[in-house]
Amino acid sequence: MNTKSSKSLIYGKNTVLEALLKNPKRLNKIYIQKNFSPDNRLKKIYNLARENKINIQYINLSKFDEYFEQKPNYQGIIAEVSPVEYIELEEFIENSKNKEGFRKILILDGINDPHNLGAIIRTATGVAMDAIMLPLHRSCPINATVEKISSGAVNHIPIIKTTSLSNSIDILKKNDYWVIATQMNASDNYYEIDYTDMNFALVMGSEGDGISKTILNKADYTVKIKTDFDSLNVSVATGVILYEAQRQIDLKQS
Amino acid sequence: MNTKSSKSLIYGKNTVLEALLKNPKRLNKIYIQKNFSPDNRLKKIYNLARENKINIQYINLSKFDEYFEQKPNYQGIIAEVSPVEYIELEEFIENSKNKEGFRKILILDGINDPHNLGAIIRTATGVAMDAIMLPLHRSCPINATVEKISSGAVNHIPIIKTTSLSNSIDILKKNDYWVIATQMNASDNYYEIDYTDMNFALVMGSEGDGISKTILNKADYTVKIKTDFDSLNVSVATGVILYEAQRQIDLKQS
Repeated sequence: MNTKSSKSLIYGKNTVLEALLKNPKRLNKIYIQKNFSPDNRLKKIYNLARENKINIQYINLSKFDEYFEQKPNYQGIIAEVSPVEYIELEEFIENSKNKEGFRKILILDGINDPHNLGAIIRTATGVAMDAIMLPLHRSCPINATVEKISSGAVNHIPIIKTTSLSNSIDILKKNDYWVIATQMNASDNYYEIDYTDMNFALVMGSEGDGISKTILNKADYTVKIKTDFDSLNVSVATGVILYEAQRQIDLKQS
Repeated sequence: MNTKSSKSLIYGKNTVLEALLKNPKRLNKIYIQKNFSPDNRLKKIYNLARENKINIQYINLSKFDEYFEQKPNYQGIIAEVSPVEYIELEEFIENSKNKEGFRKILILDGINDPHNLGAIIRTATGVAMDAIMLPLHRSCPINATVEKISSGAVNHIPIIKTTSLSNSIDILKKNDYWVIATQMNASDNYYEIDYTDMNFALVMGSEGDGISKTILNKADYTVKIKTDFDSLNVSVATGVILYEAQRQIDLKQS
């Protein structure tokens, strides 16, 4: 969603609530629609905002529309926020050094659609991925639409931004990560590899172009999802693979 | 996508091409953008249209915008079509009586978002579901956005529309279908049931309201998808379950 203001804005009750619960320092100001009938979530938002000393202003719906080029479903609330914080790969690796078990991260190579990016971040958070990595110049930014579609999941998962996906993958490999890339004509099905005994980095490419060749060449495994028709939507494909990994992990632990 | 015209319109190269390949009688007229540089798909469309004696008209981009309230990415082409044809449940059951093996159908209980509906139809076609069933009054219609997001898959899978989901499910059960419903607090995980030895009808509910109680009460199985955060996007959740069923079927056949 393009905002007309240079400020970062988010909207929607769940989105604002998640940001308040997880990272209240991100919120600079909250705007609530005048005469909007308050429900439980709105009351919760109000109380948390008071607690965290965040300014609340009541404005007319017409005023809301001044903030956004398109008119999304605000659900009576928008908030001015600092952008989502990214973390450096080195910092992420350092932080996870002493944790038990294996790490799993998701790398998105050129996802440009905010709906797909939002849905993918929500899924990745749902299966407790350790982080998501995005290339700085070839990705949709984490904007208001992405944050809304993710149901605020962007506040719950470390997001690593990199200027060179290729270099970052080299660093991951040196740190004992195995790289899995998806490719239409791979010989292995996505369910034929064992996700339970390694740190893995799953790379998903854009629907149009797939994964770039440089990245494919660095992959330790390539896997496919068979389909009788066209390809899958990238957020569906990501869900299918991440939940297969999770199924294997659940079964091993049970 | 709301069209300003009362005619049914579709847009995008893949969408028009799929309709032409699968069901050329649906197309009444094709509009191609003047001076749009033709690629292979556009040439294929041109040839198929000629073959099927479908009128082609070259118009300016500004004219395209008269047809749509919002301005989607037309990719140089729109087409006037008859709506997607629905099939009656009785007809579907009759048609599939003499087919070998088990049937699998997907029932969508109140999916209102066209992006989700389009992505779900694409996934269902990808795993070769035998049909999709939609309730007439509680579903997003198969419009231009749904058809585009589905990559034209709406032309490849029988779509059953019903005025009473409840009655239709009774009919399915009498015809030896087992009904699987998804529910957040079900005790079984979606991967804990065997999809390979029965005709099944998987019911997915809307993200907001889930599956209606009447339908839940008719289910033979309820299953959940565990998530650490919120719920999954419904098109992702549908993909996860349908591909688990497909994984089981593939493994049994190999």
